Amino acid sequence: MSSRDPSISSKKTSRVCEQKTAVIISAGTELTEGIIQDAHVRYIASELTSLGFAVRRGVQVPDDMALFRAELARAIADSCLVIITGGLGPTSDDLTREIVAEAAGVPLDFHQEAWNALRARLAGRTVSEANRKQALAPRGFALLPNPNGTAPGFQGRLGEALVVALPGPPSELRPMFTRSVLPLVADRFGAAAEVDVLWGTALMVPESSLEEALRTGAGADPRVRGVRWGTRVDEDRIVFSLRGGRSEERAALFDSLVTRLGPIRIRGGETRPAQLLTDALLSRNARIALAESCTGGLIGKYLTDLPGSSRVLWGGFIAYSNEAKKQLLGVGEDVLSEHGAVSEEAVLEMARGAVEASGVEAGLSVSGIAGPEGGTPEKPVGTIWIAVAQKGGACEARLFGFSGSRDMIRRRTAVAGMLFAEARLLGRVFLDTRAKW
Amino acid sequence: MSSRDPSISSKKTSRVCEQKTAVIISAGTELTEGIIQDAHVRYIASELTSLGFAVRRGVQVPDDMALFRAELARAIADSCLVIITGGLGPTSDDLTREIVAEAAGVPLDFHQEAWNALRARLAGRTVSEANRKQALAPRGFALLPNPNGTAPGFQGRLGEALVVALPGPPSELRPMFTRSVLPLVADRFGAAAEVDVLWGTALMVPESSLEEALRTGAGADPRVRGVRWGTRVDEDRIVFSLRGGRSEERAALFDSLVTRLGPIRIRGGETRPAQLLTDALLSRNARIALAESCTGGLIGKYLTDLPGSSRVLWGGFIAYSNEAKKQLLGVGEDVLSEHGAVSEEAVLEMARGAVEASGVEAGLSVSGIAGPEGGTPEKPVGTIWIAVAQKGGACEARLFGFSGSRDMIRRRTAVAGMLFAEARLLGRVFLDTRAKW
Repeated sequence: MSSRDPSISSKKTSRVCEQKTAVIISAGTELTEGIIQDAHVRYIASELTSLGFAVRRGVQVPDDMALFRAELARAIADSCLVIITGGLGPTSDDLTREIVAEAAGVPLDFHQEAWNALRARLAGRTVSEANRKQALAPRGFALLPNPNGTAPGFQGRLGEALVVALPGPPSELRPMFTRSVLPLVADRFGAAAEVDVLWGTALMVPESSLEEALRTGAGADPRVRGVRWGTRVDEDRIVFSLRGGRSEERAALFDSLVTRLGPIRIRGGETRPAQLLTDALLSRNARIALAESCTGGLIGKYLTDLPGSSRVLWGGFIAYSNEAKKQLLGVGEDVLSEHGAVSEEAVLEMARGAVEASGVEAGLSVSGIAGPEGGTPEKPVGTIWIAVAQKGGACEARLFGFSGSRDMIRRRTAVAGMLFAEARLLGRVFLDTRAKW
Repeated sequence: MSSRDPSISSKKTSRVCEQKTAVIISAGTELTEGIIQDAHVRYIASELTSLGFAVRRGVQVPDDMALFRAELARAIADSCLVIITGGLGPTSDDLTREIVAEAAGVPLDFHQEAWNALRARLAGRTVSEANRKQALAPRGFALLPNPNGTAPGFQGRLGEALVVALPGPPSELRPMFTRSVLPLVADRFGAAAEVDVLWGTALMVPESSLEEALRTGAGADPRVRGVRWGTRVDEDRIVFSLRGGRSEERAALFDSLVTRLGPIRIRGGETRPAQLLTDALLSRNARIALAESCTGGLIGKYLTDLPGSSRVLWGGFIAYSNEAKKQLLGVGEDVLSEHGAVSEEAVLEMARGAVEASGVEAGLSVSGIAGPEGGTPEKPVGTIWIAVAQKGGACEARLFGFSGSRDMIRRRTAVAGMLFAEARLLGRVFLDTRAKW
């Protein structure tokens, strides 16, 4: 194949490198057996596109020497940037180091400092011989530190291409990409001006509604006026970017989203609902107590995902059973028998009970039918009541109707609860949410 | 390139077709710009793997004639089944029909019956001339009906390969895949038997330790004896599969894992820690109350991920602050001041407090330092105490030391808590966990 011929290969890459071309390779038999979903191609493609790269393809390859080797040879022959994800684990089917070293015609070097860091990270735990492999890198390649895992990445040149290898777990890859790879790529290939990006976060907005609002928001065809957008769907939010065009055009499109979807649901910058509630509590010098039924602790989990959450979270109640609602929060037997646990009356008593039992300034309660069982004609799956109580102040409840799986309904409930509590704390009007979404 | 030479191409594919090889191509610039997530590769790869295919790669290509053409040429040269998704819309950047027709050296034929169906489907709406394109297919290819959209798929031979083209929207693709493609593929290539797989789950086991145990477990090299394995790392477990070899060999390798890592950590089949605790509670006709400090609700979240969790989960306490521990669970001021909230004494009182406040049969408490702040020389980040109380029975605590990020420490704590509670309920010996892992 032509890529084996260095003269042709280097000629080709010189040409394509003027165009900032890239290939993304995700390694792992679990990808080509459909056991897990590759999310790296999307994430990295979005980032590279914003830097002005044309991504020629994303590829999922199995842990197979011959197939992986062919993919790498093809990538370095037709692109100037090759990002490889996965295959850096300690196991025998993790092939990335070997494949890159072989393609470069160099041996693997043992990096004592990486080994020391790995041992420090695993302090006290048994470090197996298999882990030693994670301190290896092809000679001439530089290590990329991995603050969240045992496997460092590495980067270096292969022919005319810059090759970057990153570990597979998203919690390790994404910080490394932001901290190490973006600066490296910007430095090597010239940065697309990142000032030309307006970041925002959409909360409680279905992806299709956001897309519709983006498409129709800034007139008949905002693309004509040069504004492009990208979205990244996370567990609790959609992060979007508006790129290109003039800054007034990006601002106008953002404003149109706020007009269409409301200031509760569209926020500037990248943010998390738990951070918004945390900020609101800090600004009011208040702490919150939770009373979670159908979410079973998920709101507490989200709030405590953030380090330092003890400043704003007193604690709370997983009031899953009716006994727990009665015993812990003082919800009346009459309320439960007359209105049911999923009712305005029940969540109001739960939120008040959380404030009373804790003595803190705010209480947030949720009760609903997350499914898949338990729905009725009057209260179908997805029916959710949320209430917020403030010490010495009003207590207010809202009815929500969510669709989707049990998991989706629970996540949407947690997000809605945090945003409703934020709005109440800041004295903002919360949107009308009775419509299904 | 060799794939342009039909004689070589057909020779190659004859060889690989004995091995049931496949390539999946997802077409769309929105994929390579990271605007949307490709989910077809995973879905189709999983289906083809279960039919005994080796998926050689999944590829996302932009709507670009040259790149798409190269990808198709490569696929038909090295695989006997090529599935193309997307690129069947009415717009000018939908290229699949043209690319396949060009590769086959045939014109596009207009299908009146497809056009009639499309018009019927769009009844009343404006049918544009662009839509006529969706009634075209390469000559010699058969249409695949699309009950949920306007674009039919098509299938036929290209060289030695079977090429199937399907529309991009998942709601259209998936029913077509099930109804039309699976029968076609099974008929053409024969269906496979998946009986040769032994599934297992590893809990609280680092990936590298599992691999080490797999590699050395069944003798010097179990691969020689034909047993292969794969692992899938999830949030709360690692699922592994043992394939190939004789069933006694797979069983022997599984048994060696149990011997090495213990019956608490290695389980048969695919299971979740929350399911194991749920099953233990059901078998004892018991319910549990939680007292979570550093996990902040995560154990409750895991238990309520499972539908029907109200049978076993009474509810619990997010005892995040010291006040909450005192007020809700009756942890003594003296215990907190003398031993601290992260201590054997504190978790024992928390677990007992959960049983007392709830009146149910079992209480599970956790308190620890999840980081990144808050560690001390005596109690570094990752120090976790877990206790289980049983009504009218003993209360027992264990000390754990976890490493990793805040997120990882919290997840490991939740898993360890659920498994410790399971062991106590079933009267099983829990492993010694004081070692860091």
